[in-house]
Amino acid sequence: MENNSFSEISQAFRDHNSFIIMSHVRPDGDAIGSQLALGHALEEMGKTVYYVNEDGLPENLDFLPHADRIVQPKGEVLDVEVAIAVDCATKPRLGENALKAASNAKLWINIDHHISNPRYGDLNHIDSTSPATGQILYNLITKEDLPLSAVTRDAIYVAVSTDTGSFQYSGTTVETYEMAADLVRRGLDVGKINALTYDSNPYRRVELLRHLLNTLVRTDDGEIADWQLEYHVKEELELKPEDSEGLIDIIRAVKGVTVAVFFEELKGGTVRVSMRSKDLKVNVCEVAKEFHGGGHALAAGIRMEGPMSEAREKVLAALRKKVDQAKG
Amino acid sequence: MENNSFSEISQAFRDHNSFIIMSHVRPDGDAIGSQLALGHALEEMGKTVYYVNEDGLPENLDFLPHADRIVQPKGEVLDVEVAIAVDCATKPRLGENALKAASNAKLWINIDHHISNPRYGDLNHIDSTSPATGQILYNLITKEDLPLSAVTRDAIYVAVSTDTGSFQYSGTTVETYEMAADLVRRGLDVGKINALTYDSNPYRRVELLRHLLNTLVRTDDGEIADWQLEYHVKEELELKPEDSEGLIDIIRAVKGVTVAVFFEELKGGTVRVSMRSKDLKVNVCEVAKEFHGGGHALAAGIRMEGPMSEAREKVLAALRKKVDQAKG
Repeated sequence: MENNSFSEISQAFRDHNSFIIMSHVRPDGDAIGSQLALGHALEEMGKTVYYVNEDGLPENLDFLPHADRIVQPKGEVLDVEVAIAVDCATKPRLGENALKAASNAKLWINIDHHISNPRYGDLNHIDSTSPATGQILYNLITKEDLPLSAVTRDAIYVAVSTDTGSFQYSGTTVETYEMAADLVRRGLDVGKINALTYDSNPYRRVELLRHLLNTLVRTDDGEIADWQLEYHVKEELELKPEDSEGLIDIIRAVKGVTVAVFFEELKGGTVRVSMRSKDLKVNVCEVAKEFHGGGHALAAGIRMEGPMSEAREKVLAALRKKVDQAKG
Repeated sequence: MENNSFSEISQAFRDHNSFIIMSHVRPDGDAIGSQLALGHALEEMGKTVYYVNEDGLPENLDFLPHADRIVQPKGEVLDVEVAIAVDCATKPRLGENALKAASNAKLWINIDHHISNPRYGDLNHIDSTSPATGQILYNLITKEDLPLSAVTRDAIYVAVSTDTGSFQYSGTTVETYEMAADLVRRGLDVGKINALTYDSNPYRRVELLRHLLNTLVRTDDGEIADWQLEYHVKEELELKPEDSEGLIDIIRAVKGVTVAVFFEELKGGTVRVSMRSKDLKVNVCEVAKEFHGGGHALAAGIRMEGPMSEAREKVLAALRKKVDQAKG
C-alpha cells in the first residue's frame, strides 16, 4: 500500500474542524512530542484538538509546553470528526479507553515511522527511513506550510532527540541534523530544552540505578550482564513506569557485553524480561520466542511466570546457548 | 588582539613541511579529535606530522582512526618547523615534555575555543562562539579547501559530539548541526561512531559508578549532592584518570540538585574537589577561591589537604552558605 501524500493529509486537516490526537501506551518522548507538535499546528489553524493518551503524561515530559493538555481517557466518547494516531505501530497499542474516546471519528489518519505499521488509517503516512515520527511531522508541517509555533518547534525537537538517543543512533540522517539546525534557527533554546529533557531526573531514578548496579552480575567471559528489580523495591522507592527507561543502556554500553538483560518483577509476581543485544548474530528475539515473547533482533522482551530467580536462570541459560552458538 | 584569518593559517600550513600538533594534558575527545583531524589534513597535503600529547592517548578514544599516532613525549626534542596547539587554553597546559618536544619550532599556531586563551601563538585563531575546537577546524578545513579525509571527518565529529554532550549543551549552534549533517553527507557512519564513542565503556567504569552511588549523600532540601572516591578504591578497581569523566553529570542531572560535588582522594592524600552548579547565583568558582581553587561560575575545582572527611566537611559548609545566600 502506498503512502498518502503530505498534501492529501494537510487537505484533510483543512477539511475538518475537530480532532483527537493519540499515541501509544507507555508513551515516550516521540509519542508525546508528536502529539503536541501536530496538535498545536492544528490549533494554530483554528481547529479544535483533544490530546488523549491511554496512560496520560509521564512526569519526565511534563516540561513540554502545553503538556498539560494531554489527558488520560476515562471511558468517554469525544465528539470529533477525525482521529489521528502518531507514532503508534498498531491500533490496539493506542489503548482501549483512547480507542473508545475516538470511536465517533469518521476519518482515521495514521502517521508513523515503524516499518511494521499495518496502515490502519483511512489516510496513512508510514516512513521507516525517519528515525522518529517527530521528523515526519517536521517534514509534513514545513512542506505543507502549516503553522510551526514555538510549541510545535520544541515538541518536534524533543521527539526526535529522545528517539535518536540525542542524535546518536544509526537511524539519524542528514535530514535529522538539518532539521535540528532549522529548529535552532527558528529560535529553539538548545541548552534549555536539553537540560529539561535530560538533566531533570527525579532522585528516585538515581536510587533505582544504585539498586540495579548493586544487583549487577556479569558472566565470566563478560558477554552477558544482567540486573534485576523486585516489586517491593519499586514500592519502597515509589517508582513510576518511566523511571527505568533507558537505564539498561548503561550495561549495554560496557565493552565486551553482547547482551544486557533487565529482570523486573511486576505486581502479582509476573516477571518482565528486557533484552538488548549488540550483535545481530545474537538474536534476542529468537530467545524471547522460546518463552512466548517477541521484539526485534537487537531488542526483545518476555513476560513470564516467576519467581524471579527461576525466570532468570531459564533466560540466562537460553542466552548462554545463543551467545556460544554465535561464537561458533 | 585580532584573530589571524583562516587564509593566513592555511598559508602557513602550505609554507612549511614539518609540524608537531599538541593539545592539553588529560586530553578529552575535543583535544584528541582536533589533533587527529588537523594532523591528517596536513598529512594529506604531504606534510610530516608528529602527534604529541603529554598524557598520551586515553583508552576511551583509542577507536579513532590513526589514534595510535598520538605519542607521549619522553623528553626528546623534535626536528619540526611549526608547533600547533589545538584546544589548549594556556601554553603550560600542553605539558612540560610536550613543550620540550616542540622547542625547536620557529612558528607557533594556536587554535582554540576557550575565551580565556591569552593568544600565545605567533598565529592565533580563538573562537569562543564555537562549542568545540573541532568545529573551528571544520570551518578552517572546508573554507580553505584543505583535505577532508574519512579520518579527519570522523575525528571532527567525535571532537564536537563529546564537547557538546552529544549536541545538547547551550553552546551548540545552527552551524554545529549543519556541520554534523555535512559530515554524514560525506559518509560518516553515525550509528557506528557513536557506539564506539559512547557504548564501549570499560566494566571498571560501571564498578566505579556503583561505588560512587553507594557513597552518594543528598542534603535534606535536595540542593547539594556529593559522592566520593578514596584512593584505595581507585587502586582496587585499577581505574584510569578518564574513567570518572562525566559521571558527575548523573547527580547534577537530578531535579532539585543545585550543586553536585565529587571528592576524589589523590595519591598521597591530597583531595581533588570538583563542583558543578546549575544556578548562576550559586557561583562555585567563588567557593573554590575560598580554598585557593578556581574555575568558572558553574564548574570549579579545588585541590586541598586531606583527610577526605575534613575536606568534605569544610567544602560542604561553604557550599551550604552559598546556597542559602542564593535563596535569599
